[in-house]
Amino acid sequence: MAVYQMGNHTHAIPMSLFRENREKLCTELRRNERLDNKAVVLLQGGESMNLYDTDVEYVFRQESYFTYLFGVTEPGCFGLVDISTGNSLLFVPRLPADYAVWMGPLLTLDDFKKKYETHFVYYVDELDTIISQKSPSIILTMSGPNTDSGLVTKPAYFKGIEKYVVDSDILFPVIAECRVIKSPAEIEILRYVAKISSDAHKRVMKIMRPGLYEYQAEAEFLSYSYSVGGCRHMSYTCICGAGTNSAILHYGHAASPNDKCIKEGEMCLFDMGANYGGYTSDITCSFPANGRFTDDQKLIYNAVLAARDAVCNSAKEGVSWVDMHLLANRVMLGELKNGGLLIGDIEDMMNAGVNAIFQPHGLGHFLGLDVHDVGGYLPDQPARSTQPGVNRLRTARTLKAGMYITIEPGCYFIEPLLNAAFANPEQSKYLVKNVIDRFRNFGGVRIEDDVLITKDGIENFTLVPRTVDEIEKWMKKD
Amino acid sequence: MAVYQMGNHTHAIPMSLFRENREKLCTELRRNERLDNKAVVLLQGGESMNLYDTDVEYVFRQESYFTYLFGVTEPGCFGLVDISTGNSLLFVPRLPADYAVWMGPLLTLDDFKKKYETHFVYYVDELDTIISQKSPSIILTMSGPNTDSGLVTKPAYFKGIEKYVVDSDILFPVIAECRVIKSPAEIEILRYVAKISSDAHKRVMKIMRPGLYEYQAEAEFLSYSYSVGGCRHMSYTCICGAGTNSAILHYGHAASPNDKCIKEGEMCLFDMGANYGGYTSDITCSFPANGRFTDDQKLIYNAVLAARDAVCNSAKEGVSWVDMHLLANRVMLGELKNGGLLIGDIEDMMNAGVNAIFQPHGLGHFLGLDVHDVGGYLPDQPARSTQPGVNRLRTARTLKAGMYITIEPGCYFIEPLLNAAFANPEQSKYLVKNVIDRFRNFGGVRIEDDVLITKDGIENFTLVPRTVDEIEKWMKKD
Repeated sequence: MAVYQMGNHTHAIPMSLFRENREKLCTELRRNERLDNKAVVLLQGGESMNLYDTDVEYVFRQESYFTYLFGVTEPGCFGLVDISTGNSLLFVPRLPADYAVWMGPLLTLDDFKKKYETHFVYYVDELDTIISQKSPSIILTMSGPNTDSGLVTKPAYFKGIEKYVVDSDILFPVIAECRVIKSPAEIEILRYVAKISSDAHKRVMKIMRPGLYEYQAEAEFLSYSYSVGGCRHMSYTCICGAGTNSAILHYGHAASPNDKCIKEGEMCLFDMGANYGGYTSDITCSFPANGRFTDDQKLIYNAVLAARDAVCNSAKEGVSWVDMHLLANRVMLGELKNGGLLIGDIEDMMNAGVNAIFQPHGLGHFLGLDVHDVGGYLPDQPARSTQPGVNRLRTARTLKAGMYITIEPGCYFIEPLLNAAFANPEQSKYLVKNVIDRFRNFGGVRIEDDVLITKDGIENFTLVPRTVDEIEKWMKKD
Repeated sequence: MAVYQMGNHTHAIPMSLFRENREKLCTELRRNERLDNKAVVLLQGGESMNLYDTDVEYVFRQESYFTYLFGVTEPGCFGLVDISTGNSLLFVPRLPADYAVWMGPLLTLDDFKKKYETHFVYYVDELDTIISQKSPSIILTMSGPNTDSGLVTKPAYFKGIEKYVVDSDILFPVIAECRVIKSPAEIEILRYVAKISSDAHKRVMKIMRPGLYEYQAEAEFLSYSYSVGGCRHMSYTCICGAGTNSAILHYGHAASPNDKCIKEGEMCLFDMGANYGGYTSDITCSFPANGRFTDDQKLIYNAVLAARDAVCNSAKEGVSWVDMHLLANRVMLGELKNGGLLIGDIEDMMNAGVNAIFQPHGLGHFLGLDVHDVGGYLPDQPARSTQPGVNRLRTARTLKAGMYITIEPGCYFIEPLLNAAFANPEQSKYLVKNVIDRFRNFGGVRIEDDVLITKDGIENFTLVPRTVDEIEKWMKKD
């Protein structure tokens, strides 16, 4: 049985997982009456990419749909699936002989067949010949919008494709929907990478102390994930904000590169997730740099934790994700009110958009082969809301067993949002200025878990200290 | 004084370095009689890049020429230099207000001026207006071949540039030549990043033992470089080959991802270099996984070390790099002959190309803002050789003080090259088959130092154990 694995201490991804994905797709496509038994699916894998005009290449990462169907880690490939038989054909680049000198062993077609367990393997330069022998009635390529980036998936292309009947619309929603419900084998990878990321977060918490730089937390996380978990890539750029940086939602990129010295008394908000075999994790831990919560830190932390607990206790198949978002907001505003930051009726505050001042982002998003996974706003599903905060949700769907999603409520003190709220009489009437002013340099708290939706609840794959007591105990220096 | 720095334990790169680079370029361009005092240089910085159609972005890395002149770490900028006055104008993107919520503080134009110490700062959408006010006689943009990748540098472009006189040929060879000779401030960064990489290599050697996976060495190197050195990026993908993988020259990419378990008795060849502020290092250490050389390992290692020592003792201003390459090859073949792997006259072997069987790559390359730095084959310099091995050199120039270059002789037992040599009577007559066969699964050895060329020799910035004794002593478990 062929597997992807980074050594025997890491998870073995069986190639049968990708065969099962292909079979699932074919089953769905066979329902389409426009497709006869000569229809095929053609996907193009990613290409290697250079850093500008130099000969330095980025470490290749495969395109997610291509991984989903074929699990191939090399650049420059194509994959074809015969919808009626489920047969799979992998096309690999024909490499020059001196590849063996510079890049590694030259795999034969048979080597690739054994490695990926596709039914057939050919060279990319044989695409036209092999496809013309199959004389397909239609070639389904893929084009469709990514509703998180606004970008459009690039359909497969090879010279000569013009002479076939090609459709680039049918495939996209079907394969995206296939990816939304995770298979048992996929769930085991997701469980593994969430465990590795959880342990890496715990390791970071153990070494944390004021005086470290934010990126030293990132370095520790990267190192643990790779060395112990075999995770060469992250699912996204590490967000390691301390102090006021913890209120910058996508902190950590090149213009704000986790380069601050962490100070005594500050909160840390570390949002980091490793990637294994293309599958993602996305976990946020928030904790005081010195390992001991102040009363104010406890107040905000517990407000977010209460929101998280409420959702964890309510999410299950059949529940609307929008309702979960609003539940989290409501519970958190209630806690902030109890803490003296807000006054007034919670429903009135919600109607006035006070929830989106403190949590401008959505409650959570699908994850899988992408960290913001596909399928959030497919044609037959509820459309994006226009309500503040809710409009940031990456899906408005009703939950189904097998969906994998983050639950990540947060509470942040973001200067421009607070200033706008205080200037808006519809919102400022709920805000207790002298109390909120105490938190102006607080930053923020986010608690983010990766959970599997089941028929009657959730299974939480995130295994980190979560309560104030658990965190203080874990971080206590001996 | 504004600096780039990743915390006070790391090197401070003064922004004056980039001003000096601009001044050096202007001095050179002022010699050009085709340019009057209204000529300007315009460079375009790099853009952020998404992973396929997703909203995951690669951590932004600035384009090297743009770094050279401006030291700017944000994407989406342009920079203009007024050749006659040396005045610099930085153009930055106009960001939306909610950038502050998601990405970090919104810097004002004045913030950017303080951060980068350019004379003026404007928004990118003001490019046409500001440039038209200057009414330049000519705008020099940059286009030219990268002789390592074969790719061409992309000239700056903005909407409206068509109405100016634009030349994209003059600038390239001048700025590339400027980059070849390192300034004192650049030398200090290069010294710093070579020291960090040296220490990271030493750390890897300390933890090495059979049973580790190759990528665990990579993880350790990355972690040390980032955590201690503030180096978020590598200068190239880490090459961590053990056993026969050490003979794969560019091992470590996604299709051969450093995923082998390192076995007792194997040699490790680890070629890794951190990057700080855009400036590169490129260091290779070769050593036995268990810390103790066998006689055969000593033989090959000392053959390469003798070649490296010969070059280190001979390289200086005025010496031809091609001669250094041939010197290294000659010394190494002599050692292999003494070891019983070869018979016959060394010069005859060289003429027959036996050197390129065991070292198919060049002796070394410039490094600076690129790991294979620019200026190797500029128009006025010696052209690339056609001789085996020598044709792989990334420059054939005569050395000058201030050049920074790798010295990296190697000896590899590469199956397809050995098989071809044994099948070629012009080469096989020098090969002692029964001895060489003993090394068929040896892999290879490379010793790579980063050295500054001076008037009368070199300064070696690489500080790692190099002799057999030094390595065995360093790796000895207490």
